[in-house]
Amino acid sequence: MAVYTHVNENALSEFLDNYDIGSATALKGIAEGVENSNYLLVTDQSKFILTLYEKRVRKEDLPFFLDLMRHMSMIGLPSAEPVSDRKGNVLKTLCGRPAAVIQFMPGLSVDNPAPEHCAEMGRILACAHLGTANFNRTRTNDLSLSGWQNLAQQCGSDADRCHKGLATALSDEVIFLTANWPDHTNSPLGYGVIHADFFPDNVLFTKEKTISGLIDFYFACSDFYAYDLAICINAWCFDELHQFSIEKARAFLTAYCQKRPLTQEEINTMPVFLRGAALRFLLTRTYDWLNQVDGALVRVKDPLEYWQKLKFHQTNPDAITQNLNTI
Amino acid sequence: MAVYTHVNENALSEFLDNYDIGSATALKGIAEGVENSNYLLVTDQSKFILTLYEKRVRKEDLPFFLDLMRHMSMIGLPSAEPVSDRKGNVLKTLCGRPAAVIQFMPGLSVDNPAPEHCAEMGRILACAHLGTANFNRTRTNDLSLSGWQNLAQQCGSDADRCHKGLATALSDEVIFLTANWPDHTNSPLGYGVIHADFFPDNVLFTKEKTISGLIDFYFACSDFYAYDLAICINAWCFDELHQFSIEKARAFLTAYCQKRPLTQEEINTMPVFLRGAALRFLLTRTYDWLNQVDGALVRVKDPLEYWQKLKFHQTNPDAITQNLNTI
Repeated sequence: MAVYTHVNENALSEFLDNYDIGSATALKGIAEGVENSNYLLVTDQSKFILTLYEKRVRKEDLPFFLDLMRHMSMIGLPSAEPVSDRKGNVLKTLCGRPAAVIQFMPGLSVDNPAPEHCAEMGRILACAHLGTANFNRTRTNDLSLSGWQNLAQQCGSDADRCHKGLATALSDEVIFLTANWPDHTNSPLGYGVIHADFFPDNVLFTKEKTISGLIDFYFACSDFYAYDLAICINAWCFDELHQFSIEKARAFLTAYCQKRPLTQEEINTMPVFLRGAALRFLLTRTYDWLNQVDGALVRVKDPLEYWQKLKFHQTNPDAITQNLNTI
Repeated sequence: MAVYTHVNENALSEFLDNYDIGSATALKGIAEGVENSNYLLVTDQSKFILTLYEKRVRKEDLPFFLDLMRHMSMIGLPSAEPVSDRKGNVLKTLCGRPAAVIQFMPGLSVDNPAPEHCAEMGRILACAHLGTANFNRTRTNDLSLSGWQNLAQQCGSDADRCHKGLATALSDEVIFLTANWPDHTNSPLGYGVIHADFFPDNVLFTKEKTISGLIDFYFACSDFYAYDLAICINAWCFDELHQFSIEKARAFLTAYCQKRPLTQEEINTMPVFLRGAALRFLLTRTYDWLNQVDGALVRVKDPLEYWQKLKFHQTNPDAITQNLNTI
């Protein structure tokens, strides 16, 4: 929720001279995207999102993200697509920052997804996994096991300032996952490009509950497909009080498996993926909570939600596996 | 720069059922408006701004603001206009807040206005002053003399935490203005409805440098027309280093006076209005600087800019008056 870099009308006009998308008739900073500055750009031809990439995004990762968005769109998924300038470039510079013009995607995100939304998400996620098999770029997930180990160490005993007992919970879980996380170089588990951040606010729906937009690919990376599923289950299949919803989970998993059936190995490893997916967001939220900056423009999320979800998976390792075995 | 109240898709859909503007195809929180939550609302018919009024805006003032916007638009000024629901109401409730749907205005604001922009602003400001003579609502300006006295007292010696010497500067200026500020109940000076916040970011231009949009009427009130001019001179007729620009000021004043010539009394009182207009923003910026909230979603502006402008008017009382006498 932020605009870190201010774009003035002269810089914008000069920038748009490189494109064939008309001239600007409006520019509004939008409160979306924690990591970057985003503007709604209206030209006399269409609407776009203008994104300036800020410090937390590594410039060398941008071609991966932008190519992936284009690839997703090319295979028919409703991904926001970067717009090329007259020379065919999508990654440009504006106000000293890497910048891109992205297609504006219609639709509304859903706060509390219904089972129909979860089913649609499952269907699209399977299409994304199948459709990126021939995408030839890779990107290491720096928020996987070694990233978690680092983050847990950086939070250390301070995590208890956030919630009592959290420090021990984090280090215990890192120990568990270090012992149990699969090694992709030596594993039969499906592995490829994943979005890794398909929270409901990154998915736009029509009023007919069809997905019309997939946005914010800036955590996409190479990792286990089942881990992407686990991230979605944690984000979509709990209710507003953070209680697991068997109905949502069945809708999501059934739709996913219709397109891409899970292997028995993936089903068996799911409890570990679900704990890893819970820990990943618990750790970044704890870290951000501990490192809040005075006057920051971003609201920090309470880590508690993901601690609850982690505890659920620790105490109910079969909740999803059982369902998967009966789909 | 903020979205304080989150609007979910169900609440929005129910809200829009009251209007005849189509159904929502997109909703993006926009980083505009310090006091309220603003969304870009796209429907299958058009684009709008959806505003939820937050605590700092008094609910009883909203009919004044919304009626004024409609009046401005009716007399042909490019003011954002509130949209009526099917029953003719413009002020509604959404997510427990007073809310209104406002027409989306095209155009870009200008960071560093050129003399042509200043001339266009002068022309439009005169039209606004002439055109609201028959607007029959009034609203006391709570950021005039008594408001300044209160703010200065609340800042007190703490103002020196912000910049050394500022506390004395504020109290000295309040003493000067208390002695010299005109009493509108007993004054020949033009008095009526003013915008009171026509900063460049509240004015949208086409690329031909014509004003296409006037926004953010939430400080509008009854006060001296020449005070509204003084606010604009301070906001438009200084350069990026906060140095007075005689060229911009002449362009602005010439255009204004072509539509609405100033009286000799208005010209003679201008130095006082300019100091009052500088003090008003110096005080609110100092107050906001001293009362920054941890984790606030709004960037606090440095009061220094307006202290420099105040000093300029204190030491150059004739800078603008001389020009006015030769226009």
